Amino acid sequence: MAKEPKKLDELFHDTLKDIYFAEKKILSTLPKMAKAARSEELKAAFEKHRGETEGQVDRLEQVFAMIEQKPQGKTCAAIVGITDEGAEIIEEYRGSPALDAGLLAAAQAVEHYEISRYGTLKAWAEELGLDDAAELLQETLDEEEATDEALTEIAKSAINQQAEAA
Amino acid sequence: MAKEPKKLDELFHDTLKDIYFAEKKILSTLPKMAKAARSEELKAAFEKHRGETEGQVDRLEQVFAMIEQKPQGKTCAAIVGITDEGAEIIEEYRGSPALDAGLLAAAQAVEHYEISRYGTLKAWAEELGLDDAAELLQETLDEEEATDEALTEIAKSAINQQAEAA
Repeated sequence: MAKEPKKLDELFHDTLKDIYFAEKKILSTLPKMAKAARSEELKAAFEKHRGETEGQVDRLEQVFAMIEQKPQGKTCAAIVGITDEGAEIIEEYRGSPALDAGLLAAAQAVEHYEISRYGTLKAWAEELGLDDAAELLQETLDEEEATDEALTEIAKSAINQQAEAA
Repeated sequence: MAKEPKKLDELFHDTLKDIYFAEKKILSTLPKMAKAARSEELKAAFEKHRGETEGQVDRLEQVFAMIEQKPQGKTCAAIVGITDEGAEIIEEYRGSPALDAGLLAAAQAVEHYEISRYGTLKAWAEELGLDDAAELLQETLDEEEATDEALTEIAKSAINQQAEAA
């Protein structure tokens, strides 16, 4: 018997697992980035975002409950690749004045991945009539966008100048 | 003798290699996504973006020339991971009404990665006084943002509804 093709509810569930894995990966990566950062401002931004990420994991667990599924991650090749690039920056630019600029760029790549995923998940939740889930996903989306903007401000104000001047 | 730490110009060059590799990878991926897409609108969007991507590769080659470097790619783990996820969607959702929604989401993840990289590269080019390069990078950034918005419109208008109704 042919298998029934997967529908949007399954795609939503699969993508939820993908971002759940991604958030956990980010939780373990942020302290390394905070430790590596040279500027106090960037360290503080990474530490603040770590706290937010814990709240985002919690929201995802609520969404899993709303669709009556256990919170479960699924290896997300994208976030593995993106965070590997961050690790490479730490390795290659250790001791360099450009380290913070590189870390900041790596963090913005992470944020943009999350922005794209949460935008998608929120649209699908609405389509599936999961209004409470859509609301939670929107809250996280707003946080990710605010984090991305805050990183842009830090970049403009200090990091890029330092990287070049030093 | 200790090696001189890398500076912003080297970070700029390294990141240029990263996005050059990414664009080439995207060039080879878009035809597969266009072929897999069920809706004519989405196929057309992928085909249009393939043409744009060729222009973006060309702009990157101009930027390499501006910093007196040969155009050269460097494996970008992030784009490999992101495009692998797209390939997984094609595999897992073949024949499913949700396929296009998944492809669209994968394409938006790609766009957001590029938006973050071009935003970063443009800021660094300005910082380094490479104004002509900054202008070219801004042109591509504008295209990527327009593509992302166009994909969101397609998603809103058709794909998500189809995925659920079918």
